[in-house]
Amino acid sequence: MARPSLREKLASSAVETLHASGFNGCSIQDITDAAGVPKGSFFNHFENKEALAIDALRRYLEGTRADLLFDMSKPPLERLRGHFTYLASRFEGCNFERGCLLGNFATEMTREYPRMREELRQVFETWCGGVESILREAQAVGDVDPRHDPGQLARFLVNAWEGVALRLKITRDRGPIDEFFNVTFKVLLK
Amino acid sequence: MARPSLREKLASSAVETLHASGFNGCSIQDITDAAGVPKGSFFNHFENKEALAIDALRRYLEGTRADLLFDMSKPPLERLRGHFTYLASRFEGCNFERGCLLGNFATEMTREYPRMREELRQVFETWCGGVESILREAQAVGDVDPRHDPGQLARFLVNAWEGVALRLKITRDRGPIDEFFNVTFKVLLK
Repeated sequence: MARPSLREKLASSAVETLHASGFNGCSIQDITDAAGVPKGSFFNHFENKEALAIDALRRYLEGTRADLLFDMSKPPLERLRGHFTYLASRFEGCNFERGCLLGNFATEMTREYPRMREELRQVFETWCGGVESILREAQAVGDVDPRHDPGQLARFLVNAWEGVALRLKITRDRGPIDEFFNVTFKVLLK
Repeated sequence: MARPSLREKLASSAVETLHASGFNGCSIQDITDAAGVPKGSFFNHFENKEALAIDALRRYLEGTRADLLFDMSKPPLERLRGHFTYLASRFEGCNFERGCLLGNFATEMTREYPRMREELRQVFETWCGGVESILREAQAVGDVDPRHDPGQLARFLVNAWEGVALRLKITRDRGPIDEFFNVTFKVLLK
């Protein structure tokens, strides 16, 4: 197996460091130290810390199994449940301490980093679009009330999920996740 | 009028600085500079930056008009709507750029600051308790389906609201707020 390039080593380690510590909670030095690469090498590979964070966001998204939203072998609401179940397992995997990288960056970076803000705008739009298409399907097969606006409902749900991710950092237990599932699938989408 | 004490000047200015820049996005020097007080005076008044942030959180909460939740002259759901309408006006007042200080601190501080985490745990619990009692009243007068668990619904709504606050930092328009109101009052609490 080929050794990972310095850039790869730096970028993949940065996802962990930025997720655990936050964008402003770690320095470039912290990131290069954690990656085991020389600090001086940073600017050979990334224009600045924001560019690294955008790269980290994309890598993080690759691990979110967005394909689960489009697995047409399953009924729409089961797919939606599988999607959030997978995301929940990731929160649980780090003891609920890290939250969602999207939400973390939205909180810390949107005011001062317009490129990150635009990146996040697109990421959330795509995510909401995927959830919306599932809700449309669910309406077509009679599983969701056809009078609801599926786009609005999708955006509401995605935002609610981000609120759950944030609350988990306080509770450090599954409570907010279980309540999201109960209210979403037993009340809202009934 | 008496001049505000140095401590008061520092603490009230810190709410703004911490809300705008985030806990890790500003230094003690930034905070004392913004307050127009000598940096050296900081530790005469606060044990550390976390203690200042906890003080800022309490001041922030004083501005959230929690009394609106308990104005018994209005029907319960109207009160709930008034509560979120007031919070929304605060987001709008800073061009949606700052989010909610509770959510911001939850995102940035819970991992490394156990006192802040405990403070946030209590604040969210109290807030959710207030919303829960409104929902119970609404159930008693027949405005909300009595089969729903009001505590669970309250926690879901508060988390969803925090997700809205975060999403506003990206969209910088009322969209997420309007959608929260539509889904909450026209779908969820029907």
